[in-house]
Amino acid sequence: MTLPTGERVEEAHRALASGRLDEIARYYHEDLRWLVPGGHELAGWYRGRDALLSLMARAGKLTGGSFAMQRRAVLIGDGYSADLCRNTGTRADAPAGSVSPYDRLDMDVLHLLRWEDGRVVEGRDALFGDDATAFSQSWSQLASDGSRVGD
Amino acid sequence: MTLPTGERVEEAHRALASGRLDEIARYYHEDLRWLVPGGHELAGWYRGRDALLSLMARAGKLTGGSFAMQRRAVLIGDGYSADLCRNTGTRADAPAGSVSPYDRLDMDVLHLLRWEDGRVVEGRDALFGDDATAFSQSWSQLASDGSRVGD
Amino acid sequence: MTLPTGERVEEAHRALASGRLDEIARYYHEDLRWLVPGGHELAGWYRGRDALLSLMARAGKLTGGSFAMQRRAVLIGDGYSADLCRNTGTRADAPAGSVSPYDRLDMDVLHLLRWEDGRVVEGRDALFGDDATAFSQSWSQLASDGSRVGD
Amino acid sequence: MTLPTGERVEEAHRALASGRLDEIARYYHEDLRWLVPGGHELAGWYRGRDALLSLMARAGKLTGGSFAMQRRAVLIGDGYSADLCRNTGTRADAPAGSVSPYDRLDMDVLHLLRWEDGRVVEGRDALFGDDATAFSQSWSQLASDGSRVGD
Repeated sequence: MTLPTGERVEEAHRALASGRLDEIARYYHEDLRWLVPGGHELAGWYRGRDALLSLMARAGKLTGGSFAMQRRAVLIGDGYSADLCRNTGTRADAPAGSVSPYDRLDMDVLHLLRWEDGRVVEGRDALFGDDATAFSQSWSQLASDGSRVGD
Repeated sequence: MTLPTGERVEEAHRALASGRLDEIARYYHEDLRWLVPGGHELAGWYRGRDALLSLMARAGKLTGGSFAMQRRAVLIGDGYSADLCRNTGTRADAPAGSVSPYDRLDMDVLHLLRWEDGRVVEGRDALFGDDATAFSQSWSQLASDGSRVGD
Repeated sequence: MTLPTGERVEEAHRALASGRLDEIARYYHEDLRWLVPGGHELAGWYRGRDALLSLMARAGKLTGGSFAMQRRAVLIGDGYSADLCRNTGTRADAPAGSVSPYDRLDMDVLHLLRWEDGRVVEGRDALFGDDATAFSQSWSQLASDGSRVGD
Repeated sequence: MTLPTGERVEEAHRALASGRLDEIARYYHEDLRWLVPGGHELAGWYRGRDALLSLMARAGKLTGGSFAMQRRAVLIGDGYSADLCRNTGTRADAPAGSVSPYDRLDMDVLHLLRWEDGRVVEGRDALFGDDATAFSQSWSQLASDGSRVGD
């Protein structure tokens, strides 16, 4: 069994960001599971690498490409890695300058990954404080005035 | 201006339940707005009678036809009606006998309707206690184990 | 049995606002129950008129006396009254000008009252849209940065 | 600077569980901060070791001593440790056998600790999936029927 290293976690993130499927396949198992936190429309368990990639494409589209993760720390142990990130993004349809949680995401997220044989087989994103509330609002179809965006 | 009466509120509900578009049109304005509570995928403002009817069809499908409203009281005043109902329903995909809030809806809901010239021009559903939490869970795509239903 | 009237609902509100116990006792039964919505520290069923008055005193203190209800409509029927209000208030400890939901309350609230023999025996406050989330935040001990206010 | 080790994380947990103040002081800085997730009455930032110990005593009392953490993995890196635990507990006032989220806590919790010179200076508990909702319910003063426990 290959233990994850900080370097390998970094490489896995870069592969995912590159969008190159052959690179992604080197770090993410095709049968992985991924749990998105909160109660919003995108929340819950995703089964399979393709489902994860679809989710990421959807998140990118909803935020007009503004979604970004800034890594602050990487932890390793017992077959897991955890990277602590500052995740930010603004919804594509947000009024300019809005700080509403329905429009703007800006919070620490911890990505807990389980590795087997050098590839990620499970991911779970964890949230701190009362952030799950704002996280669900930012990914919901609700605008700050209760309009349904996209209808 | 025709004030709503308890009888007319009752008739409006029967029209909606009948599914007959000509009957529905007698009680619901084509440009009405309707606000579904919570933060789940079906929540927010619906614009237009057609959007309301689509929502109702979707709710019926998600609950396998089990969604029901039992009227307990009707109030009238200042151009509004309010009907207090016990709303129940079980998700079509729920494990038999589940009492999980992700599977089973069972709570009081108050439907506040604003009337103009004998027709509903606005509806807002109101919730009591901590019911908004369970309401959002029951209409979310999440099963009680975090699976995404329908994916 | 004395049915509630719009006038009597109005008088009951004035009595409560006056703080005069003899006036309050004319409209509110000593064994009433009252349900405050949400999941925050003040939420849940209050049992007895004294508990309701303590709650109101606490809400007034938390908002530095800024808590206000503006009545927009009164409905009557089947032994119930419902008054639709715009409720506003700013926490006593809020930074000046803050629009954070942890600091500022500004939403429609419907107060559903059940009457017996001319007095309120049960009250339940109902919320619309996604307001239960902001309502719980505004009455929680959390400031917008996650600090525990009052510790 | 002493980096945390898996052994030291283990020792810190044992010290906290022992209740012995001299032992606790060896692993937890007196000026530490700790963030409890959710929107319930116990949520938010605790400032100082004494505040953390008071919180733990309160959690123990609320759960009638049933609160327990089972460690599943420990991760280390960049001045942080993260221990993934299964946290369980039943409220002291829960009806026997209840599986309501208002009565019973049973979920994975990740404790992210920042260390300086061999002692914890900051702790943040992170939650997965939709667990923040159940976590807030389990620590709230609400029973599953909306009663206020302890009033």
